[in-house]
Amino acid sequence: MSVAEPIAPPDTQPGAHLAPLSSSERLARLRLARSVNVGPRTYAYLLRRFGTAERALEALPSLADAGGKSDYVPCPLAGAEAEIEAGQAAGAVMILFGEAGYPPLLAEIDLPPPVLWVVGPAEILRRPAVAIVGARNASALGLRTARNLSRAIGEAGQVIVSGLARGVDAAAHEAALATGTVAVMAGGVDRIYPPEHGRLAASIGETGALISECPMGMEPTSRHFPRRNRLISGLARGVVLIEAATRSGSLITARFALDQGREAMACPGAPEDPRTGGCNQLIRDGAALIRNAEDVFEALSGPRTLALAEPGREFLFDDDSFGGDYDVADYDAGDFGAIDDFHGSDHAGAALADQILRLLGPQPVELDEIARQCGASPAEFSLAVLELDLAGRIDLPAGGLIVKADPPA
Amino acid sequence: MSVAEPIAPPDTQPGAHLAPLSSSERLARLRLARSVNVGPRTYAYLLRRFGTAERALEALPSLADAGGKSDYVPCPLAGAEAEIEAGQAAGAVMILFGEAGYPPLLAEIDLPPPVLWVVGPAEILRRPAVAIVGARNASALGLRTARNLSRAIGEAGQVIVSGLARGVDAAAHEAALATGTVAVMAGGVDRIYPPEHGRLAASIGETGALISECPMGMEPTSRHFPRRNRLISGLARGVVLIEAATRSGSLITARFALDQGREAMACPGAPEDPRTGGCNQLIRDGAALIRNAEDVFEALSGPRTLALAEPGREFLFDDDSFGGDYDVADYDAGDFGAIDDFHGSDHAGAALADQILRLLGPQPVELDEIARQCGASPAEFSLAVLELDLAGRIDLPAGGLIVKADPPA
Repeated sequence: MSVAEPIAPPDTQPGAHLAPLSSSERLARLRLARSVNVGPRTYAYLLRRFGTAERALEALPSLADAGGKSDYVPCPLAGAEAEIEAGQAAGAVMILFGEAGYPPLLAEIDLPPPVLWVVGPAEILRRPAVAIVGARNASALGLRTARNLSRAIGEAGQVIVSGLARGVDAAAHEAALATGTVAVMAGGVDRIYPPEHGRLAASIGETGALISECPMGMEPTSRHFPRRNRLISGLARGVVLIEAATRSGSLITARFALDQGREAMACPGAPEDPRTGGCNQLIRDGAALIRNAEDVFEALSGPRTLALAEPGREFLFDDDSFGGDYDVADYDAGDFGAIDDFHGSDHAGAALADQILRLLGPQPVELDEIARQCGASPAEFSLAVLELDLAGRIDLPAGGLIVKADPPA
Repeated sequence: MSVAEPIAPPDTQPGAHLAPLSSSERLARLRLARSVNVGPRTYAYLLRRFGTAERALEALPSLADAGGKSDYVPCPLAGAEAEIEAGQAAGAVMILFGEAGYPPLLAEIDLPPPVLWVVGPAEILRRPAVAIVGARNASALGLRTARNLSRAIGEAGQVIVSGLARGVDAAAHEAALATGTVAVMAGGVDRIYPPEHGRLAASIGETGALISECPMGMEPTSRHFPRRNRLISGLARGVVLIEAATRSGSLITARFALDQGREAMACPGAPEDPRTGGCNQLIRDGAALIRNAEDVFEALSGPRTLALAEPGREFLFDDDSFGGDYDVADYDAGDFGAIDDFHGSDHAGAALADQILRLLGPQPVELDEIARQCGASPAEFSLAVLELDLAGRIDLPAGGLIVKADPPA
């Protein structure tokens, strides 16, 4: 089998109706997603602008050049082929955003990951799920809460999502092995972390799934954990915190849940116990207080108890065509004008790029705000931002934000 | 000194402006309050109807007779004198509802106790107070929370009210000895319970107060504790629960707090810890989650976070003239018609009494509802209810309720 032949995604579940992508387009999309400075937002924008990943790949160098980077090279074909080969070796399947097997709740978040690797029966990703996360150094009481909650929610038919970490995460996975659990990895799905959870990960992969948006073989580092947490909440209808301290990754997961319109829930703890400070804070902020599975179901069935302040509405990089019933036909180039004429922006575009950079500081600000201050048309502004992003001069965090990129080390 | 000379109440605090009661009227009010079947509601009604306790005492036998009890005898003079003598011996002062020294927040509750006995500097009862109550079998963590919270609230100038029980109560009192604490007793103020808290009670009485609505010398029994809890919440701006189980006296105190329009607050605990089930339930119901003193002050400064459903408005036994700036002049008989003509209700009244009794079952119901079903005038209905109460055939729990009395054992 050629390594250039991507593994077919699972699309046998009921309700699957999306036209499958060709093998070459799947490979091109993987290359596009893995190209330098192509984040989820730029990936989506490029696909919409050029209709296919192959055409977007061709345009990348000139776009980056317009942004100020003349030596831009997209992810080479060999790199993508090697990743697919590694995935095959690990028994993983690749699922692209827009494919029928893509987790439906994850597809609804802002900037869904373009590429997922999954070990285990990927159908589980379409079942309703609740995330349980918490302290690595959890108390015996906290671990018991995690087990009891996970078992009861699992027996009620819901999948348990967590992060394979020590403590609460592992307890939640273990108690849901029989009913189905999904572990979201901070590195590649073939890099089990922490190493002592190898057997647990293997058990999860038998009936549930290991999942990651990272390339195969990528070692997890601390900077990956927030992205991992964003996936945990994105896969679930709600997140339950157990023994989360005031500055903890679990609390970040809850924050993502709110950003994503999911329910944030927390098990309380004694005020004098620092392990539960984040949980108590979240409950004070309005999150549902969770004592047992019934409380979780009640929180998920009612109106949301806690919501973040609405971020400023974003008219740029509008991802409407990506939500819901995505179809590759939407990407016909005809919708976007004659792309053969496209060679990056002109001199006026370069001036706009300089203007944008001058408006940016070390703190992320709203794209809309910068657009207003520039006074450029949405189309001009979007293009200039895309070019700057590809050139590595800005970053585009989730939430419609823009920030100057760190200078290269 | 004659034992018939009641001890003068403290009325030296700023803002005192009420005309003092005569010694004979104070003694008569004590007799009225201690007479059989005269609860707080009937006490208030009788005082308003007859202007003075002396005249009310005279009318009691004929009223009870109209209700079906022909052998009614009010509390004898000697009984009241003996109680006052016992109070003197214990170094306690008597404070009657309506007197300047009466705790202002307690005066605002539904059916405030007519008589209070206080050991210690009673001025403390006019300072703003927070109640802290909780489990007798509290954990080390719970006791620490009680101490920390009590100390910090006390140092901020608030009095700590509690119930002198083992566990959380004792810890809260102890931590507030230096700043001021009030212990509400379930029996007479001269009956320390539990006995091992004799030294703690003595310390409290030096800078704070022991307080009770029970007659001097009365031994506390389990049926007194709910009444004690009603006083704890009534004296405070809010009640903080620490380690209260789902069916606990502390939770009853919180319920009273809500009934009385006070803030109900609770320190959370781990879901698997049965000691904190009541706290977590209360927070789920909307009570403020308390981690520290700042959270308490925030809860007390804002709008109420939790309120009970409004009970049906009550047009009977209207106690308006008792609230706020009560003055003995309000009790002039002229406001209520010629009471010399009053000798209980006539035959029509007896028929109404029978009708009321037929409408009552073992569960308390709203007075208003029974009044509507009877179709009698408010004046007729109020009188019939008063007579039935004095005759011991009904009870009138707080909240505008009426219930058939248990048959005598």
